Amino acid sequence: MTQLSRRALLTGAAALAASPALASAPLAGKQAPGYYRYKLGDFELTQLADGAATFAMPDNFVANVPKDKALAEAARNFIAGPGQIRVPFSPVLINTGSKLVLIDTGYGPNIGPVVGHLPASLAAAGITPDQIDTVVISHLHPDHINGLKTKDGGLAFPKAEIMMPENDWKFWMSDENAAKANDPVNKAYFANTRKVLSDLTGKVTMYTPGKEVVSGITAIDTAGHTPGHCSFAVASGKSSMFVQCDVTNIPAFFLSHPDWHVIYDHDANQAERTRRKFYDMVAKEKSLIVGYHFPFPCLGHVEKVGKNYRLIPVGWSDML
Amino acid sequence: MTQLSRRALLTGAAALAASPALASAPLAGKQAPGYYRYKLGDFELTQLADGAATFAMPDNFVANVPKDKALAEAARNFIAGPGQIRVPFSPVLINTGSKLVLIDTGYGPNIGPVVGHLPASLAAAGITPDQIDTVVISHLHPDHINGLKTKDGGLAFPKAEIMMPENDWKFWMSDENAAKANDPVNKAYFANTRKVLSDLTGKVTMYTPGKEVVSGITAIDTAGHTPGHCSFAVASGKSSMFVQCDVTNIPAFFLSHPDWHVIYDHDANQAERTRRKFYDMVAKEKSLIVGYHFPFPCLGHVEKVGKNYRLIPVGWSDML
Repeated sequence: MTQLSRRALLTGAAALAASPALASAPLAGKQAPGYYRYKLGDFELTQLADGAATFAMPDNFVANVPKDKALAEAARNFIAGPGQIRVPFSPVLINTGSKLVLIDTGYGPNIGPVVGHLPASLAAAGITPDQIDTVVISHLHPDHINGLKTKDGGLAFPKAEIMMPENDWKFWMSDENAAKANDPVNKAYFANTRKVLSDLTGKVTMYTPGKEVVSGITAIDTAGHTPGHCSFAVASGKSSMFVQCDVTNIPAFFLSHPDWHVIYDHDANQAERTRRKFYDMVAKEKSLIVGYHFPFPCLGHVEKVGKNYRLIPVGWSDML
Repeated sequence: MTQLSRRALLTGAAALAASPALASAPLAGKQAPGYYRYKLGDFELTQLADGAATFAMPDNFVANVPKDKALAEAARNFIAGPGQIRVPFSPVLINTGSKLVLIDTGYGPNIGPVVGHLPASLAAAGITPDQIDTVVISHLHPDHINGLKTKDGGLAFPKAEIMMPENDWKFWMSDENAAKANDPVNKAYFANTRKVLSDLTGKVTMYTPGKEVVSGITAIDTAGHTPGHCSFAVASGKSSMFVQCDVTNIPAFFLSHPDWHVIYDHDANQAERTRRKFYDMVAKEKSLIVGYHFPFPCLGHVEKVGKNYRLIPVGWSDML
């Protein structure tokens, strides 16, 4: 590329960096708002950033693949720094015209600073917490339920009906199952569901797969990641799409390689079967999908490539 | 996927769509602001959406590939509706601390409504036009220069020094070359440069490849797309990246298939050589790049795959 080398560029910039003048505008020092809107028929959907966690990849993050192979794939996809993994978290808000529905709630205020941004993203999108009519939880993992509560343990969405996947509630709220948990991840999950949800017993609405939780939003059985994990089909007029929730964790790993098993899957083999069934369907139907752990704004289509899949992100549009 | 078919979902939703209640929040009816920030060393960069054009793909959009093959690739990548192509336009703003620099200016106010959004995106990012210290033009095509002017023909960035690639200026402002132009695309380009730039003669600063146009921002010769087309290496401290401008048009076509020639290339063979040289370099160096016609926010890395390339978009971060 002409006579320029990377080294020359850096040296040149360093030599000139002492310039004392100031730009006409100061550095802004903050990111754009963490939301993105799109239409589906008459519905208006908003992706909401709760944040993203970057962390040293645990040895068994991909339970059935050697760590160095997983890290090589992370590097090939520029996911994070050396040895690291990065997982984003993004609930979706659906305004059906009749109901303002939030699917999953993020990590809540007690973990930050890199997560727990849902309230700020909602505010940036012009929504107040008491405008949410319905909160639908896909499964009872902390990054999906903890945002139900405020810092002081109150209800984050005080006027909302809270809908819980019955099979997941039964599993994670069972004292018998909690007593049997013997690995640290599951023990933490059981402790968390008790801490966050115990005082909601009797105050939530249970749903099962097949239930139209809100007019136009139908729960789908995508068990495996957790015993009662659900996804959602959303339909308005002639348009439809799928909210996959945690059918996969980060797509560069688990959508591109559906046979890779993430540490967080409760039944990894069932999760893989669910994943293949789900992506076979959306690839065949050319459906729009949205993934909770996909790169923001989380929208894409899926192409089947041999026994694997390719995610084709939807390009951000600056018009609704 | 359980007992649900797409048809059942749509029918179910239609049956229930008559619900008279209203959601607690009205539809917002507008998109999130069209900007995205990121840091590079001490610099703060902002991608700015000027909009995107969706249009019936001209027969020769890919000059050396059959139309049906190109449209099949568009469909495989969910680029737009059947028979269509979609091209986004996104200038980049660089605050070096010493200068607030805008590279390229979008379509301006006279084409809309799907383009010409740069002023709105700038305003959303908290920048007023008179804060821009320097405008650097990569090449003299309409989607890069027309935003230099307001609707009434005034200067859109009244206090900015305007920097022009000398070789492109010489080519496109030459009456001799204009007289020789015999195809509609080039005739339109020559007419446009005269309309937009004639009154700026003598009021702009010329630069050539290798020139550090602003401290930390160095022009690179990437001729081919136009005779004087330039890209930019940006460096701050130990960090660097490349602003590719129009080394390729939409990446799903011309980065994935560097041997495909877009209709807008002035010298298609030179443009292909430049493309391969540029992407070989950034793939080898694992450089961050930003593309004017890439899906917003336009950032990515490049992997070499055989004789072709793969774009790996950078995931949107909700923190700076």
